[in-house]
Amino acid sequence: MSKGRLEAFSDAVIAIAMTIMVLNLRPPAGHGFSDLRPLLPKLLVYALSFTFLAIYWNNHHHLMQAVEHIDGRVLWANMGLLFALSLTPAATAWLGPNASSTAPVIVYGLVLLLSAVAYFLLVRALLRLHQPGSRLAVAIGRDWKGKFSAVAYVVGIGVAFLEPWAALAIYIGVAVVWLVPDPRISRVMGDGGVAET
Amino acid sequence: MSKGRLEAFSDAVIAIAMTIMVLNLRPPAGHGFSDLRPLLPKLLVYALSFTFLAIYWNNHHHLMQAVEHIDGRVLWANMGLLFALSLTPAATAWLGPNASSTAPVIVYGLVLLLSAVAYFLLVRALLRLHQPGSRLAVAIGRDWKGKFSAVAYVVGIGVAFLEPWAALAIYIGVAVVWLVPDPRISRVMGDGGVAET
Amino acid sequence: MSKGRLEAFSDAVIAIAMTIMVLNLRPPAGHGFSDLRPLLPKLLVYALSFTFLAIYWNNHHHLMQAVEHIDGRVLWANMGLLFALSLTPAATAWLGPNASSTAPVIVYGLVLLLSAVAYFLLVRALLRLHQPGSRLAVAIGRDWKGKFSAVAYVVGIGVAFLEPWAALAIYIGVAVVWLVPDPRISRVMGDGGVAET
Amino acid sequence: MSKGRLEAFSDAVIAIAMTIMVLNLRPPAGHGFSDLRPLLPKLLVYALSFTFLAIYWNNHHHLMQAVEHIDGRVLWANMGLLFALSLTPAATAWLGPNASSTAPVIVYGLVLLLSAVAYFLLVRALLRLHQPGSRLAVAIGRDWKGKFSAVAYVVGIGVAFLEPWAALAIYIGVAVVWLVPDPRISRVMGDGGVAET
Repeated sequence: MSKGRLEAFSDAVIAIAMTIMVLNLRPPAGHGFSDLRPLLPKLLVYALSFTFLAIYWNNHHHLMQAVEHIDGRVLWANMGLLFALSLTPAATAWLGPNASSTAPVIVYGLVLLLSAVAYFLLVRALLRLHQPGSRLAVAIGRDWKGKFSAVAYVVGIGVAFLEPWAALAIYIGVAVVWLVPDPRISRVMGDGGVAET
Repeated sequence: MSKGRLEAFSDAVIAIAMTIMVLNLRPPAGHGFSDLRPLLPKLLVYALSFTFLAIYWNNHHHLMQAVEHIDGRVLWANMGLLFALSLTPAATAWLGPNASSTAPVIVYGLVLLLSAVAYFLLVRALLRLHQPGSRLAVAIGRDWKGKFSAVAYVVGIGVAFLEPWAALAIYIGVAVVWLVPDPRISRVMGDGGVAET
Repeated sequence: MSKGRLEAFSDAVIAIAMTIMVLNLRPPAGHGFSDLRPLLPKLLVYALSFTFLAIYWNNHHHLMQAVEHIDGRVLWANMGLLFALSLTPAATAWLGPNASSTAPVIVYGLVLLLSAVAYFLLVRALLRLHQPGSRLAVAIGRDWKGKFSAVAYVVGIGVAFLEPWAALAIYIGVAVVWLVPDPRISRVMGDGGVAET
Repeated sequence: MSKGRLEAFSDAVIAIAMTIMVLNLRPPAGHGFSDLRPLLPKLLVYALSFTFLAIYWNNHHHLMQAVEHIDGRVLWANMGLLFALSLTPAATAWLGPNASSTAPVIVYGLVLLLSAVAYFLLVRALLRLHQPGSRLAVAIGRDWKGKFSAVAYVVGIGVAFLEPWAALAIYIGVAVVWLVPDPRISRVMGDGGVAET
């Protein structure tokens, strides 16, 4: 089974989810600078969601490079991840103008959590097909970062009942942790400048 | 004629059809949990439509891997399939808030039926180009699952005149049958973990 | 310069233009069959526009297979074609509910004409890079079909001032002519079932 | 690390950003030619934004052809560029009906400037991975065109406070400068008609 087409399809879904979010940044009715004020929180939430989707694409990209085999279960686990990520634009559209309200912050956190769980299941499905000493298995290691993110999202969702802004800070913190490129896989793959044609 | 570009184009159309459906999940006007209630049936219908499109992508992916030749007739049969699938977002948008009404359930079933027929025609167009003993012909076999689906959609459409929810249950049943990866093609292709680079 | 990325980018733009047109098929407010009536002309116009974009993708696909070289001029000629094609959803959205009015039929014809001219310029840009005896030059030949289409669109636009429906019939006639796969290029490429992997 | 998937993902995002802008060209309520008048400035701004995105795709395409290595920093610099470009549809939607107002013209210029800076950072990230005498380094050279564009955008933004139309003229001037294919990279790559398969 070809992993190339799986990658291409995932690229398309993630790229579309990223880009259609900008449709929420509807132009204001007026044409002065002050008319932009209500757009500012939407823009910041858009940037956050774009970053999360970029992180997933990056991790997916690194992950698939270490993959040697895929099967039907992997295809469906990947579809589960794409479904979770495809909910990001809807959660973003609700959070944008309501970033200080409990419910939208929790729903946003639930979509993040669902995506993290789906990614975890994709990794499990891939590990089933690879030997313990394989490049993939070594690269994944104990996956503390994935587990940490899921725990942080659960904490954030709980905190949001008391203080939505604190929950947003936790979500942003997770993004910052992931922005550092994953050294686990890069190290194993020797990514520090590999020639390609 | 290159099947690579046919696959890439199909990937793009299916990915877009899947992802733009999320635009129907418009954020509610309020910012409380109770405001989400009207979104719930839309979300469930979205998940169902996502699953159907994922099934088609999966089957298309398996099918094309066994394909050795394509011609102009295949290109057009594939376009017919993409046209049928592209109607899914429209049928989904109508069904979402009207999942208990006869007409939207029937229209949704008609789009499913049209897609099944279009896929059947694509398979026929491909079989014309391949020998009876080819990997593709062996993999397709008697295609009972495709025929069963078409019959089930027709039954569902008929049932919807009496009881829309029963028709939805039939549609969901078809999706469940397909969620099991197709052993016909996988067996012939030896998909249980083939190395790829 | 790589023609692969040019093809992939063109695929993406054409696939998106095709698929976002379905966003015009907004679900009706009601949930009965009679509520669908205003959607019917929109659906037919959608099918026509989908067919035109499918024809362009098909021709682009055949054309690029015979191409051996590209240069910066080809990139820009291709962008011109993509710009013209990207106007199809806007023209379709206007024509859908106004298929019997002069102005929308003319604007639709102008977009078709612009696309035909842009395709012609792309072919010219490619012929500049290929020898008279090259596979591309032989495959293009005298390009009577492209010239006929442009003339037919001009006639259709003129006729639309008198009788919009007659103009639509002419546009549909051009689509029918193109639906037959282009034997010029297929013949030279030997497309009657070429093995691919 | 594979530059192929980076290119494919960038293609998808740029293609979507380009094509969803056409959603702003909503059909007018009436069906006469005079109803099109308010669409005309929107169409011109659409054409300008399409041209800018086409220029970025072209430059990205040329740039990546000279690239031999990528790393995690390049992935993130590229994401920064995609984020900046993804704001183009929002800036376009505001400028379209307000092309003579100061604020929309300035915001449009800021998005152009942000994109130019992001592209500059991508180029720097790539140069870090390539030797001074590499094909990439030679091709980039002193990058006067990139620096000139950034300066021109800053000037345009300043001018817009006094005379929005003059700022638009400056933006259009930058587009015209870039429309000429970049001889720096083409020369080094020998693009004057390279055979590809």
